Amino acid sequence: MNQIKSTISRLDSQDTLASYREAFLLPENTIYLDGNSLGPLPKVAQRRAGEVVEQQWGKGLITSWNQHDWISLPARVGDKIARLVGAKENQVVCCDTISVNVFKLLSGALAMRPSRFVIATTQDNFPTDIYMAQGLVKQLGGEYEIRYLDEENIAGQLTDDIAALMLTQVNFRTGRKLDMQAITAAAHEKDILTVWDLAHSAGAFEVKLDECEVDFAVGCSYKYLNGGPGAPAFIYVAQRHQANYTQPLSGWMGHKTPFAFTPDYEPHPSVAQNLCGTPSVIAMSVLDAALSVFDNVSMSELDIKSKKLQQVFLSLLESSEIAHLLPLASPLEDERGSQLAFRHNEAYAICQAWISEGVIADFRAPDILRVGFAPLYLSFTDMQQAVEKLAAIMTGKQYLNTEFQSKLQVT
Amino acid sequence: MNQIKSTISRLDSQDTLASYREAFLLPENTIYLDGNSLGPLPKVAQRRAGEVVEQQWGKGLITSWNQHDWISLPARVGDKIARLVGAKENQVVCCDTISVNVFKLLSGALAMRPSRFVIATTQDNFPTDIYMAQGLVKQLGGEYEIRYLDEENIAGQLTDDIAALMLTQVNFRTGRKLDMQAITAAAHEKDILTVWDLAHSAGAFEVKLDECEVDFAVGCSYKYLNGGPGAPAFIYVAQRHQANYTQPLSGWMGHKTPFAFTPDYEPHPSVAQNLCGTPSVIAMSVLDAALSVFDNVSMSELDIKSKKLQQVFLSLLESSEIAHLLPLASPLEDERGSQLAFRHNEAYAICQAWISEGVIADFRAPDILRVGFAPLYLSFTDMQQAVEKLAAIMTGKQYLNTEFQSKLQVT
Repeated sequence: MNQIKSTISRLDSQDTLASYREAFLLPENTIYLDGNSLGPLPKVAQRRAGEVVEQQWGKGLITSWNQHDWISLPARVGDKIARLVGAKENQVVCCDTISVNVFKLLSGALAMRPSRFVIATTQDNFPTDIYMAQGLVKQLGGEYEIRYLDEENIAGQLTDDIAALMLTQVNFRTGRKLDMQAITAAAHEKDILTVWDLAHSAGAFEVKLDECEVDFAVGCSYKYLNGGPGAPAFIYVAQRHQANYTQPLSGWMGHKTPFAFTPDYEPHPSVAQNLCGTPSVIAMSVLDAALSVFDNVSMSELDIKSKKLQQVFLSLLESSEIAHLLPLASPLEDERGSQLAFRHNEAYAICQAWISEGVIADFRAPDILRVGFAPLYLSFTDMQQAVEKLAAIMTGKQYLNTEFQSKLQVT
Repeated sequence: MNQIKSTISRLDSQDTLASYREAFLLPENTIYLDGNSLGPLPKVAQRRAGEVVEQQWGKGLITSWNQHDWISLPARVGDKIARLVGAKENQVVCCDTISVNVFKLLSGALAMRPSRFVIATTQDNFPTDIYMAQGLVKQLGGEYEIRYLDEENIAGQLTDDIAALMLTQVNFRTGRKLDMQAITAAAHEKDILTVWDLAHSAGAFEVKLDECEVDFAVGCSYKYLNGGPGAPAFIYVAQRHQANYTQPLSGWMGHKTPFAFTPDYEPHPSVAQNLCGTPSVIAMSVLDAALSVFDNVSMSELDIKSKKLQQVFLSLLESSEIAHLLPLASPLEDERGSQLAFRHNEAYAICQAWISEGVIADFRAPDILRVGFAPLYLSFTDMQQAVEKLAAIMTGKQYLNTEFQSKLQVT
C-alpha cells in the first residue's frame, strides 16, 4: 500500500498538466469522473458569463453586436475548436446542436452523391445521430435508406452504393474508438463521404481531421470542452468540399450577406453556410471562455495523461481485488477513447452508491458503469481515492442498499 | 410647453405599469427604443445567470439535470410563453431558433397536405423565414414551390393549391400588423395550414393563437420577451394537430422516451416532438427568469400602454414641427404592432446621431428609422426627451456630420 501511495504521489508531482486543475471550480470532496457527460465549470467561463450578461447585454444592449463582435463568435469559437480537432482554420463553426448539424451534413452529403441512396452507420451509434438520419430518410422518401453496419470491420462492409458513412469516433457506451484514418481511407476508395461525430473525442485526445482527410464532422462542446450544459455544437466541412456543399437549413446567418436582406438565399461560400438562426450569445460566449483553458495545452500530452490515468485506475482495481467483479467492457488501450466502461447487473446502483461517496461517474443502460477521464482536472490521487471507495462498495455490497436502487432519469 | 409637460407628468403618474421599469437594469442616460431588436436585461435574469452557472453547473454538475430539473425547461418555458401568446398549455415548447423551427413546421405542414405543393408567403416577410422555405423547397424538389403574395388583401390571393401559408404577424420594417383572425379563417376555408411568426408580437401586445385557431407558430424570445441576445426560440403546434404532425428534425430530445435509447425514433406524441438536440441550459434558464417579469402583467394592459406611447410620440413629433420631415411608414394604430417606422434618405445617420444623444433606436435598409415601444420599461417622459433630442437633430441637420454617416453593420 505504501508503495502504491508513493507511486501515486510521484505521478502527481511529475504531471505537467497538474496546474490546470486550478482553472476549474470543482466542488469540494468530489472526484468528477463524468466530464464525458458534462464538463465542470472553468473559472474563466464563470467570469465571462457575468461579463456577457451584465456588461455586454445589460450595458451595451443592441450595440454589443458590433462593439463586442458578437456577430463573429461562431467563427472565432469554431477556429478555437478547429485547433483541438486537428483542423486548419475556416473549416469549423460553432452552431446549433449535434442533432441539427448531423441533418445539415447528411443532407449536404447526399446532394453531393445524387445517384446513391444509402446512409451507412452502426446500430450502436449514439441514438440522436441515427434518429436524425431516420428523419431525413423519411423526409426524402423514395429509395433512401439507412444501412446498419457492424462495429467490427466497418471497412469490409463498405459498398459503392453508400453515399455517406456516419460514425461516432468513440462509442458512448463502451468507449471503443474507431480508426478514423483507416476507415476514412476505405470509404474514400468507394467514393463514400464520411461524417464523423466527435462528441467523445473533442478535448479528450488528439483528433486529426485534416490529416485523416475527413469530409465532414460534428461535435459537442459540453463534454471534454467544458462549455456548459447544452453548450452549442460545432460543425466541420473540409475546405475542399466547401464550394460544392449546400445544406437545406438555409437561415439568414448562413447567407453570403445576411444584413443585405436580399429576397433569395445565397449560401456563404464557406463553412459559415451552416450558421442558420441567431445563436445564443450568452451560451457561445461562455464556451468561448471555456475553450481558452486549452490555449497552451498540447493534445498529445492530454492523450498521454488520459492513458496513464486509465492504466493507474485499472491497476488499482486489480490490486484492490475487485477487478473480477467489474468486467471491463472497453477494448484495449489503443482502441478506446478517454473512458472505461464496466459491466455489472447492478451498475446503476453501484454508480449511485459511488456518487453518495463523492465520486461522480455515470450509468448507461442496461448494465454499464461509465468512467470518464478528463486529464485537465483529474489527479492520480483522485484515481486512488475513487478506487478505494469503489472497492468498499463492491466488497461490502453497499449497492444493495435500497436507497441506491431506485431508477432516476439518467441523462 | 408647460401644458405638454404636465400632460406627460400626468400620464406617467397614472401609468399602472410604471413600476416594472425597476425590474430592468437599464444603462443610465439612455432611452431604449430598440427592445424590438434586443430586449434589456431583467434583474431577475442576471441573478439567474449567476445561479445557473455557479450553483447548478459549477456545484451540481451532471446531477443538476435531475436536481434542478433542466430536462423539463423547454416545456416549462414553453408554457410560460404560451400564456403570453394566447395559447393553452402543452402547445408551446422552447427550442432552437426561429429559422430551425420554421423548417420543422413547414415540413410538418407539407406532410399534412400531401397533394399540395405550394408554400405561400409575402415577399416582404423576414428574410430568414423565406430562406428556410427556399431551403426546404429545394431539398424536396419536384413540384414544390414558394408563391409570394402581396401584403395587401392576402385573403383574396389564397387558392386551394396552397399547403401552408407562412406569415409574420408584424412586418419587421413597417410595423404593419396583419389580421391574424381574418387571414387564418380565410386560409382554413381553402384548407390551408397557417404558420405565424410572432417575432415582433410575443410580449408586445395581446396575441390570441388559440382564439384565432392558428395551426402553427414560431417566435423569438430576445425581443419583447427580454430573454437575452440570441435567446432560444419557441414553437407552437395547436393541440388538434399534435397527433398528426411529424417533422424531420427528429433528435433524441423529441423522442417519446429519450433515455431508453431505442434503435428507432418514435416522436413524442405532443409539441415536445419539436425538441431536437440538447438545448443550452444557461440560455434557457436566463430566458425562464426573464419571463417571470411578465407573471402578473395583463397583455391587454400592455397593448393599451403601447398605443398610448405611440400616440404621445407622434403628437410630440407634430408639436415639435418635425413630423413632416419624417414621414410615417407605419399604418394606422389598429393595423400596426408596437413600433413606428419613419422614412428618410438619411435614416441611418439620423439613427446614429440619436444614439449619440442617448436614444437607441435602429435602422433598417434602405431608409427606415425604426422605433420600438416596449411598455414595461418606457415612460412618457422618455417619449418627450427622445422627441426633443430628435427634433434638435432634425432641425439642426446634425445627422449630416460625417461621424454619423459611416455605415456600420446593422443587426
